[in-house]
Amino acid sequence: MFYQIFPDRFARSGRQNLNLHLQDWGAPPTLHDYMGGDLWGVIERLDHIQSLGINALYFCPVFQSASNHRYHTHDYFKVDPMLGGDEALRSLIDAAHARGMKVVLDGVFNHASRGFFQFNDLLEQGEHSAYRDWFHVSAWPLFPYEHQHPANYEAWWGNRALPKFNTDDRSVREFLWSVAEYWMRWGIDGWRLDVPNEINDDSFWQEFRRRVKAINPEAYIVGEIWGDAQRWLGGDQFDAVMNYNFTRPCLAYFGAQTLDNAMNEASGTGYVSPMDAAAFAGRMSEVTRMYDPEVVQAQLNLLDSHDTARFLSVVSGDVSALTLATTFQMTYVGAPSVYYGDEIGLAGGPDPDCRRAFPWSEPQTWNREIMHHLQMLTAARHHSKALRRGSFDVLHAEGDLLAYRRECGGEYAYVLLNTGQQASDMALDNLAPGQYRDALSGRSYGVGQQQRFSVPGRGALVLVQGL
Amino acid sequence: MFYQIFPDRFARSGRQNLNLHLQDWGAPPTLHDYMGGDLWGVIERLDHIQSLGINALYFCPVFQSASNHRYHTHDYFKVDPMLGGDEALRSLIDAAHARGMKVVLDGVFNHASRGFFQFNDLLEQGEHSAYRDWFHVSAWPLFPYEHQHPANYEAWWGNRALPKFNTDDRSVREFLWSVAEYWMRWGIDGWRLDVPNEINDDSFWQEFRRRVKAINPEAYIVGEIWGDAQRWLGGDQFDAVMNYNFTRPCLAYFGAQTLDNAMNEASGTGYVSPMDAAAFAGRMSEVTRMYDPEVVQAQLNLLDSHDTARFLSVVSGDVSALTLATTFQMTYVGAPSVYYGDEIGLAGGPDPDCRRAFPWSEPQTWNREIMHHLQMLTAARHHSKALRRGSFDVLHAEGDLLAYRRECGGEYAYVLLNTGQQASDMALDNLAPGQYRDALSGRSYGVGQQQRFSVPGRGALVLVQGL
Repeated sequence: MFYQIFPDRFARSGRQNLNLHLQDWGAPPTLHDYMGGDLWGVIERLDHIQSLGINALYFCPVFQSASNHRYHTHDYFKVDPMLGGDEALRSLIDAAHARGMKVVLDGVFNHASRGFFQFNDLLEQGEHSAYRDWFHVSAWPLFPYEHQHPANYEAWWGNRALPKFNTDDRSVREFLWSVAEYWMRWGIDGWRLDVPNEINDDSFWQEFRRRVKAINPEAYIVGEIWGDAQRWLGGDQFDAVMNYNFTRPCLAYFGAQTLDNAMNEASGTGYVSPMDAAAFAGRMSEVTRMYDPEVVQAQLNLLDSHDTARFLSVVSGDVSALTLATTFQMTYVGAPSVYYGDEIGLAGGPDPDCRRAFPWSEPQTWNREIMHHLQMLTAARHHSKALRRGSFDVLHAEGDLLAYRRECGGEYAYVLLNTGQQASDMALDNLAPGQYRDALSGRSYGVGQQQRFSVPGRGALVLVQGL
Repeated sequence: MFYQIFPDRFARSGRQNLNLHLQDWGAPPTLHDYMGGDLWGVIERLDHIQSLGINALYFCPVFQSASNHRYHTHDYFKVDPMLGGDEALRSLIDAAHARGMKVVLDGVFNHASRGFFQFNDLLEQGEHSAYRDWFHVSAWPLFPYEHQHPANYEAWWGNRALPKFNTDDRSVREFLWSVAEYWMRWGIDGWRLDVPNEINDDSFWQEFRRRVKAINPEAYIVGEIWGDAQRWLGGDQFDAVMNYNFTRPCLAYFGAQTLDNAMNEASGTGYVSPMDAAAFAGRMSEVTRMYDPEVVQAQLNLLDSHDTARFLSVVSGDVSALTLATTFQMTYVGAPSVYYGDEIGLAGGPDPDCRRAFPWSEPQTWNREIMHHLQMLTAARHHSKALRRGSFDVLHAEGDLLAYRRECGGEYAYVLLNTGQQASDMALDNLAPGQYRDALSGRSYGVGQQQRFSVPGRGALVLVQGL
């Protein structure tokens, strides 16, 4: 179970006395201001994260970058000084590993930034640059900051802040692969890959995988692919992708009554059509079979991220939609990922608002119900092999009601969800009889082969054996 | 005795297979092209350097920089990848130390470059930059590359490629001092400081010294100060400066008949008025007393550098002027510094021509006379405490003829120079009688209290005891 951290906003330690211009912690996020979160701050908050039942950290970029989100990489071999530099990452990895937590970093390999050394050489030397083949230049001179002229180089979605690497160049390939290897040797546990589809070259990612896995065969490689990802999930490129095919149906079903589609459309998610239980079950059954079962087990299932409005805000603040969605997330196949702050009901519209500072000093603002709910679910998932690695079979899906079975090696779990406002009864048959406990209410259920359950309105039963 | 190396042009190893656009080794130097010299190449040529009698290396900048001279620092904590990166410097320092050679690096602390991380943040974030106090901004936005607008930030001599640090800012001071400490801990033996007078703040350099000497009390700190340097040489800032007060008189006297002042004026040296022996002796006696004797002993005495046309070219190719000047340099008070290539008579006009590639593969072009002459003098200097650390007293200075005495702890050396075309006799008295040998001809001299010597035209006697 992952916890996604946006480093500038998660936690600021008292340790970085940098005398810099920073926004106040908690001020409204802007595109250009820094708040000064750092990795020492993350170390100080590992107790909180671990208390959520989390056992893996996925960090938005941490390398030196002149941008608060750090996607504009300035130096791939250096942790940003504002984050505490290499020393802080070293300590963080060691502290995380000591707790049995993995650390995955975000790698932006498609493009660099205007200040990146080899690109800067093109700006300084023009055609004389030793590195002129590292990028895609159409004419000289380049105009990196002068919008009245064409940039004259290829950039990510035309954003001249992000010059695209020429990954056909041998030096560039070696450079990028060496970055991947360098941090793997440092001890990270995997890579999240930013817009990897834009490097339109299977051999690039195949060699990337070979090198990463040569250092750690258990490494996790997860690509940011928003659409169909078959091309990258054949076993020779990524282990998984960021599963936005999971995100959208969750919004559609759990948020059916409260969806703010204007917000969705201004966000990475886009317009979402509401779904009932049957449509959701149908879609999630497809998603479950979309890739090889091993891949589906590894998919990064997220409700939101730094690239989307927060789930709670998209459903117009309806806490029940978030808790229902979290219930599904934690009981479905794959690797759940919680975006920092979601556990306390932090609000946030589209980027940059979804990147607010975590309100450590205002615990009265935290929604403890959401946090407690999450903790019960992660505990159940840790306990239950069926929830973690079991099959997924829909037993009932109609109107507001959904039920599914998870099974692994003879161990069962049953999840019953009710998105209606009122409590409803659900009759299920072909159940594996036995003693179960509802992970949410703590109630015991002696389950027979056929059984009728009452599911609370906007609520769920998560029936787990032996809890 | 120092050897000054311009890394891009000294030697290219076969080891850096970077697939980059480089000029051919030996092509005419330009402002923007790289030739690809590297530090592995220096290691491969340590035998050559050591054979010259050199025991210290002074490197023009080696840190990551988008410029062939590397004065535009992009990263103070990283050796340029084209030079072989940190690994090559590590090996070079170890190899040099194993030979008893010191390593001094060039530190550019007054200004950074446009690609330097913290400055790049100003370009990317504008007024929102966390680092906006690191530089001197007069208005927003900044125009780093758009010459039709004012730059809106202070830069070295108005060159917007070189944004000047705000060294009043506490973070900036700590940053720059930490650079100095970092490389001292790495094992370098000192710093040559680029344009340190432009940081108009004694307390900055006082603390710089404290920190450097705390790591290595023997460290050598030499500033690039072209004029009067009293302010920095009081014992609490630098150990020495680049002694251009030595350079100019040498050109004036030894080059009196062949000076190319058009070239001087296009170079760092500026116009030089010819001198006769009396004027030269008077000036050098002043220079010898200009600072505390300990400082004078430490001065970096150079005939030329990366910032001037080469001595041999300024004297219109007159080899005798160079060998006479070298004779003086190696027998005068202070620390002689030989600019790479001077030992083989490499030519070069003002920057960038004075930065030609060392012609390793064309040994037939080397002037062996110059090299042999240098070797005899460095051997004599190694042998003679009087030459290294002795007093300096002019015995005779008239017309073309100059004679001086060096004495240290009862050990004597006498140097007689004749800049005329014909051999001349010189009568000296008050000599320390004894057996001497001329380091240049190898001839023995039984010297009495009074003695008449014949000094060859455009030649010298370097009389050393016990050689």
